[in-house]
Formats: sequence, structure tokens, C-alpha cells
Amino acid sequence: MPITVKALQKTGPDQPYRVAEIQRRDPRPDDVVIDIKAAGICHSDIHTIRNEWGEAHFPLTVGHEIAGVVSAVGEDVTSYSVGDRVGVGCMVNSCGECEQCRNGQEQDCLNGNVGTYNVKDVDGSITQGGYSQKVVVNERFVCRIPDGLDFDVAAPLLCAGITTYAPIARWGVKEGMKVAVLGLGGLGHMGVQIAAAKGAEVTVLSRSRKKEQLAIDLGAKEMLPTTEEGFYEQHRGEFDMILNTISADIPLDKYLGLLKPHGVMAVVGLPPAAQPLHFGSLIGGGKVLAGSNIGGIAETQEMLDFCAEHGIGAQIEVIGIDEVDATYDRVVNGEVYFRAVIDTASFEDAPVGA
Amino acid sequence: MPITVKALQKTGPDQPYRVAEIQRRDPRPDDVVIDIKAAGICHSDIHTIRNEWGEAHFPLTVGHEIAGVVSAVGEDVTSYSVGDRVGVGCMVNSCGECEQCRNGQEQDCLNGNVGTYNVKDVDGSITQGGYSQKVVVNERFVCRIPDGLDFDVAAPLLCAGITTYAPIARWGVKEGMKVAVLGLGGLGHMGVQIAAAKGAEVTVLSRSRKKEQLAIDLGAKEMLPTTEEGFYEQHRGEFDMILNTISADIPLDKYLGLLKPHGVMAVVGLPPAAQPLHFGSLIGGGKVLAGSNIGGIAETQEMLDFCAEHGIGAQIEVIGIDEVDATYDRVVNGEVYFRAVIDTASFEDAPVGA
Repeated sequence: MPITVKALQKTGPDQPYRVAEIQRRDPRPDDVVIDIKAAGICHSDIHTIRNEWGEAHFPLTVGHEIAGVVSAVGEDVTSYSVGDRVGVGCMVNSCGECEQCRNGQEQDCLNGNVGTYNVKDVDGSITQGGYSQKVVVNERFVCRIPDGLDFDVAAPLLCAGITTYAPIARWGVKEGMKVAVLGLGGLGHMGVQIAAAKGAEVTVLSRSRKKEQLAIDLGAKEMLPTTEEGFYEQHRGEFDMILNTISADIPLDKYLGLLKPHGVMAVVGLPPAAQPLHFGSLIGGGKVLAGSNIGGIAETQEMLDFCAEHGIGAQIEVIGIDEVDATYDRVVNGEVYFRAVIDTASFEDAPVGA
Repeated sequence: MPITVKALQKTGPDQPYRVAEIQRRDPRPDDVVIDIKAAGICHSDIHTIRNEWGEAHFPLTVGHEIAGVVSAVGEDVTSYSVGDRVGVGCMVNSCGECEQCRNGQEQDCLNGNVGTYNVKDVDGSITQGGYSQKVVVNERFVCRIPDGLDFDVAAPLLCAGITTYAPIARWGVKEGMKVAVLGLGGLGHMGVQIAAAKGAEVTVLSRSRKKEQLAIDLGAKEMLPTTEEGFYEQHRGEFDMILNTISADIPLDKYLGLLKPHGVMAVVGLPPAAQPLHFGSLIGGGKVLAGSNIGGIAETQEMLDFCAEHGIGAQIEVIGIDEVDATYDRVVNGEVYFRAVIDTASFEDAPVGA
């Protein structure tokens, strides 16, 4: 029997959130039912449900930074038991058979992975995200949250954590390296912590020094304002890696000039416009410009274990379900340091339809 | 005592070549004197001496694809002896002490490497290239040409060979991979041979099928014209690596779409204008855009040994010193398949000033 749960839902891009009842599917043999404890607010949630990316399927519930407790398991589930602390990120299914899935790169599934919300699931329904009391997910897309990580601190790791961990791991960040993190928001603040925990010397690049103390508290050595006269010349050839977390236009050639020979600029932020690039900025010094898109499930587990081991979590503010609309505006204005997380306990007494 | 040798020299960008006498330095203790047997014509030679890149120091001799025989060595030289078959490429010196030099990446010397021609040498003179009878070079910048490689076939390897070998090696091209080589000129024809010798299935991408048979003779499986209707959609996600050897504008986002997830597009050609790039083309599938600039000396030696082992050399036409000006025009028009090499024996009877 399908499971009826409360969820935050919008019926259109300009509508306020309301508490609705939605159906979670009757668990299949390989499904895990999760009682959600915390759901992070990712900027993608806002873009999607405000229909800024188009193709939003209303009524819709978003949220792909999910932490909770297993409350039931299908008969074939082998990896999880009732009571386990678990998380779900941006994907809830993939073919499992293609080259990418077999290599643990489910995010690049050649048959298309199933996103956690707003996409057509294998049964034809539209997936509904984690701003909700429960979710039902195939066990292959569930990760274990180590005991050392609280649910609210862990939830944002399922998207912001893996998005920054994957390129830092892929490009071998380690002690002795100098890493620049461009932008200090939800992604950037995870990038700083992870790169520092890998042993690198971390510099935050931003337009102003406004968040300097925050950067240092997160483990950065310093914050450099890119707007200062002569910045790009003064720091030429300084970094082994730049992690670009911002979604705005950047002077790409100048940033590549900040890299050492063979250095890597990894991009996880998505500016809408094309960025002009002179190939000479890559050829001189054999430099690399690399994209990165979340990470596979095994690597997401590795990231969670790494964060627990190093005492890393998202820096969060916890909000109730009635604060989500107002918080969206604060996220868009860059006023949330660094992630807002919905405490789903606030669903309990909320009347449906409010 | 300096050594007087004949060389092809221009006194200005629009002047014809003439045979001049130039001075090679009195060998220092760590210098090797090389009797040049063959000198390849690289497109960079033409750009430089026609002053298309500016900063040409006339009178000038170019050429950085040099093969010959050691005819004398300085007293401290340990690696080479008189009679050894050797080559010199794009560099003739570097600091030897910086991080890059210590890592065998002399091309990225943090204090600037000394180019084989048209740059200020450590003694303040302007370096003169290989269209000449002899050259004097620090032994650290000399490579050994295996017996299996003729001088004229080996000369172009010192630039075109290492330029394509380095990215193919760096990005791990091997059996089971599909590699596309974009452009079939001096660089591309080496890239095809090297990638095929590494075991990859090689496809040549070009605007037409004009060189199809040549591509197949070089070891490609096929040649695909990029101008055919639906090309980019039809071959979406097909290649592990694209080696871009052309210096013209390209639809970069579309090319990145031809890569498999985690695929690499390596660029060694230098279009003058900035190329527009949507970061989404890299983020989806975690793709890589990488520059590459020749290679270090140890890797150049590795490339020469690899080519000898696999019976690879440049496909060349041998010309005399009186044919260089006319050959330049043919190179610019894409009429040379695939490298012209000057037989320096033709200096012997040439009167100075002609």
C-alpha cells in the first residue's frame, strides 16, 4: 500500500508553500523507507520550483539533501536495517547496467539517472523530493550516515558535500598543495573544509573581504578579494587547483593564469552564458579545465565517512517548514551562512493545506 | 672559438631566404656540437619568420625539429659521444633548478625556458634555429635518436611528435579507447599514429573526406567529416579523448558533446580568438578540457623510443634549401602531406649570399 505523508508542496512557481499529503510508493523488494529528519535547501531547489529552469511539474515537492532513519525495508534489501541512519542525495535510481553505473558513476548513467525530484521515475510518476516526512528509495541510492554526523549537519553533504568532494578527490588534493576556492556559499564552504582536511593550504577568492573571518574559521589560510588592483598579476602561477563554485560570469583566462603549470580549475558552478576562453591559457603550462557533477554513490559514502572522520559538516541554520519561502529569498540574497536545513519534526502538528 | 656555419636566414619578414654564415658559440663544457642532417619545417617557423606573431629578431634562422650527429662534446659532457645520433626540439636551455625543471617539465620552467630560435639566450645573444649546418646545445636538451629512425623521419618528432605524444600519454590512451584526432596536418598525422600505436581505435575528424585514405594508411579506423548533417548528434558520447590539432575556431560545446563521461579534449592548436564555452558542457559527464605544450626532455626521449619501437615516423617530403620559400606557401595552403624536411646536405655547395 502506498504511504501517505505530509510534504511541502507548491502548485505553481509563484505560489507559497503549503503542507500537502503526498503518496510514497508501496516499497518494492529492494526499497528502503526513510523517516526524514532533516532536508537541506539547495539553490537548485529554488531554481526548479520557481520554474527558472523550465519544466517544473506542479504540484511539486523538492529537496535532494535528505537525512533520516530507516523505518522499513523491502524483503530483498541487504544493506540496511530498520533504525539505520541514512541519507539520500540528488539521485534515486539509474539503470545499474551501463558502463558508467558499473564504474560507480551513476550520475553519468548512459540511460539517464532518475533525479530525486521533478523527473519521470521508472514507474512513470514524477519524483517528489525530501521536504517531506518520508521517502521511499531503492537501497542502491541510499548512503549510511556515520554516527558522528548529526542529521541536520549531514543532510547538505548529500549534494553540496559530494559536489565539492568529488573534484577535490579526483584531482588529488593533498598536503603541500595550494587550493583556491572561488565563492563562499553552500558549495564553497564545503570545498574549503574538505580541501583543508585533505591537507591543502586553502585560499578563498571572493569579491570582497566580507566573509574573511568565516573563511578562516572554516579552515582557509586567507581570503583574497579578486577586485583589488593587480590581483591577477600578483597571484599568477600560485595555485595547484581552483575550485570554482560560483554561477556568475568570470574572467576565465585570468583565473587560469593563477594556476601553476599542470594546475586544474574545476568548475561546479553553472553560469548561464558561454565564457570566452583563449586556448593559449590552457596550452601554456599544460593546464586543465574540468567539470564535475555531484558524484557516484560509492564516492558519496566515501565523502560521508571522510567528513565524519575529520569532524566536517555543513554550517547550517535550522528552520521550520513555515520559514521556507522566506528563507528562499535570503538564500537568493546570499544571506544564509551557509546552508538552511528544514527540521521535518515541524511537520508533525502542521495542518494539511496550511 | 666560435664555429662559422652556413644557415638559411631572412633579414626581414618579406625577404626571401638566403644562405648566410652565422656563428655558433664556442662549446661550453656541457655543450654538444651537432652536425645537422635534417631540419623539419613547422608552421611555427613560418608564423615567426613572417613576423605574424610579432617580435621576430632579424636577421633570423628558424627551425626547431633538428636531427643530426654529434661532432664534438665539451669536457663535462657525460651523456653523448662523437658519432651519436641525436635530436633537438623546441628548447635549448632552462634554469634546471625550479620545481618544473626538477620534475622534468622544462617546457614549463618557472624562470622561462630558452627557445631554440628567436629568443634571448643566457649569454644575451638571440638563439638561431636548425635550418643550418651545425648547432651547439647544452647536453641536457639533446635527445638520442634510436637507430631505427632515419634523420629526416625523426626530425619532425622533436616538435610534432612530442606535442601529440605528451597529451596522449598524460591522459592514458590505451587499448579499448576511442580517440578522435581533429585535423590531419603535421600534428594530427603524428597523433593518429601514436594513438593507434597505443592501441586505441582512432577516428580522424575533418571538414571533408579528402584525406580519408591517408588517415587510414596512418592507422585510423575511419575519417568522419564534421560538416555532414547531424554529425554532432550522431556521434554524441562516442570518444574517450579528442585531440584537437587545428588552429581555427571550433564549436567547442558541440565537440565536448562527442566525449564520453569523464572524457578529455586535449588542445594543442591555438586559434587566435577566444572560444565560447558553456560550463555545462564540461559539468555534465565531468569532462575535461586540457591544454598541452610540447613536453619535457625525458618525455621527448620516451617518445622517440616509442616511435622507434612501433616503427612510427613523420610522413615527409625532403626538400633542398632552395625550396624552402616555395614550400612555406604550400604548407600554408595545406598541400604538404604531412611534413617538409630540409636535407641540410644541400648547404654544402651553396654559395653564401645566394
